[in-house]
Amino acid sequence: MSTLAAPKTSFYDPQIEMAHGAGGKASRRLVEGLIAPLLLQHSNEPLGDAAQVCVNGARIAITADSFVVKPLRFPGGSIGELAVNGTVNDLAVSGARPEALVVTFVIEAGLPSGELEAEVRAIARAAKRAGVIIAGGDTKVVEHGKADGLYITTAGIGYPNPDLMLSPNSVRPGDQVLLSGPIGDHGVTILLARGELDLEADLVSDTRSVFPMVDALARAAGPGLRWMRDPTRGGVATSLNELAHDAGLCIFLSEDAIPIRDSVRGACELLGLDPLHIANEGQFLAVVEPAFAEAALDAIRRTPGGEQAAIIGEVREQPAGTVLSVNGYGGTRVLDMLVGDPLPRIC
Amino acid sequence: MSTLAAPKTSFYDPQIEMAHGAGGKASRRLVEGLIAPLLLQHSNEPLGDAAQVCVNGARIAITADSFVVKPLRFPGGSIGELAVNGTVNDLAVSGARPEALVVTFVIEAGLPSGELEAEVRAIARAAKRAGVIIAGGDTKVVEHGKADGLYITTAGIGYPNPDLMLSPNSVRPGDQVLLSGPIGDHGVTILLARGELDLEADLVSDTRSVFPMVDALARAAGPGLRWMRDPTRGGVATSLNELAHDAGLCIFLSEDAIPIRDSVRGACELLGLDPLHIANEGQFLAVVEPAFAEAALDAIRRTPGGEQAAIIGEVREQPAGTVLSVNGYGGTRVLDMLVGDPLPRIC
Repeated sequence: MSTLAAPKTSFYDPQIEMAHGAGGKASRRLVEGLIAPLLLQHSNEPLGDAAQVCVNGARIAITADSFVVKPLRFPGGSIGELAVNGTVNDLAVSGARPEALVVTFVIEAGLPSGELEAEVRAIARAAKRAGVIIAGGDTKVVEHGKADGLYITTAGIGYPNPDLMLSPNSVRPGDQVLLSGPIGDHGVTILLARGELDLEADLVSDTRSVFPMVDALARAAGPGLRWMRDPTRGGVATSLNELAHDAGLCIFLSEDAIPIRDSVRGACELLGLDPLHIANEGQFLAVVEPAFAEAALDAIRRTPGGEQAAIIGEVREQPAGTVLSVNGYGGTRVLDMLVGDPLPRIC
Repeated sequence: MSTLAAPKTSFYDPQIEMAHGAGGKASRRLVEGLIAPLLLQHSNEPLGDAAQVCVNGARIAITADSFVVKPLRFPGGSIGELAVNGTVNDLAVSGARPEALVVTFVIEAGLPSGELEAEVRAIARAAKRAGVIIAGGDTKVVEHGKADGLYITTAGIGYPNPDLMLSPNSVRPGDQVLLSGPIGDHGVTILLARGELDLEADLVSDTRSVFPMVDALARAAGPGLRWMRDPTRGGVATSLNELAHDAGLCIFLSEDAIPIRDSVRGACELLGLDPLHIANEGQFLAVVEPAFAEAALDAIRRTPGGEQAAIIGEVREQPAGTVLSVNGYGGTRVLDMLVGDPLPRIC
């Protein structure tokens, strides 16, 4: 660890607000301004979904996420399933094969045991489906009113594919941007599940492991695969803005190529939200060298669940650090990161 | 994963209470009756502080803990330091060299940024002191009133010492029981720090990494080292009861040999608590083959912080599954696990 200088922090917000947990600009300010400089050794490197560490000569991918989704259960999934798939996906898009998870529970006293059991079972099922083992965990209980039913944290380790060099720094102008499927399903499902809006839609969360798709893509594109990310909190727009910023390049999107279900589009229009800012839990973005783009797309589409994958844009040189989006009428707009927190506790 | 039969659960409490998080009997009922049967592959094996998994041929130790201690800061430490040392110690007593941690924060909206920064700095300091890197993490924010300032979860990986075979099943009658130092400091410090009791004591938490002591012990005792545990929630009595139960043997303690500070003893007497049930954060128990016991004790005592280590008892055959304790007057009592939750949110 460098001891040359005390790490510099640059976080000046007086207190923590919901927006700091929303995955957008405020989250980035907190993580890059305070947490990464103090905690991470190489905090000048772009932050990925999982880190790699060396244990006795073996490279291991490692990641962790806490889950505070509200409500605990929603169409298509629940907090337990989310907690497994979220960590599995962070490993997958970092280029690692997910191997094992550890799970901790912070439980609010008074939670009916049946609700806990349902989530423990959901975790077991999701882990089996994703092909990971649960190696251990911990349980804490806090007084009634000091949590919201149940918070779950999962950490995971995986085996990094030694052939992949995924990094914003690997991305080049001309590279193609791929998306695994329709966006916004998870975020809108959660929003509607809260029942606070007079809206209904036949929609379920997309929570699932993306590893089978990522694995097929990696085999098809090999070293032509440059970068991946699962666009959860903050959505596709935030993930691509982080890429544009970290790579110092422009991401140019064809908005009409982005798969969005009518129900998601409709709900977003009514609520004044941009589907590109809505959280996904079972999708991923990939940047692929142009020569491999068609084969990569084909590989994802042939994997169950990846049928609607699409090439949604390309990497350009200028204007560096921005995401531009062109719609069907030829209008171009600058797509910003998520600002504020329109969708609290989505995962 | 075995698919021969659906896992059997045996947890019948209707809802989760504080006692289920206290580390005693109710915790064991929850973990062994519900969580382990559903989540862990080999749930019939005794549960250790960390598990071992295989990633690409390399054996890795892995563990995770959530921390909900109240108050966040207390004499001798804070939640951030506890979160590092707790996970480091779980790896250490499992026989692994701690290597890397991941850290997640669940923050209550409204937490002053300075309080968060203090804990991030505490984590950085404790990690540096313990010789582990922080590889990554996550931040979530929940509404005011849905947490209690800050909850921290740490997961850690380490390199398992291939020469050690630590397990309750390795323990034999005649083995000696070692303790690294005075007990009860952490639990009583937290209790007094809450200010609800009209008691004061010149006492600080013992939170620290025990790895240097464990490492010295392992070198001195080698394969004569049979079992280790850090007696956190539920204290020494609970850890040794779990050992007695899992090994099917009796642990026979000489109560006068157990180092306890006068201030801890005094506070416990006033409060009607048994120091053997109080949580520790910087101590560990070890069971060592008799031929190595003196060398093992010497190795711990020569390590800074281990000066008060002691041999506190021995393993006997009968009565199997119990912990017996003999005092200076020759009186013998059965020492039970912690029952109920006299000390909520101690870590």
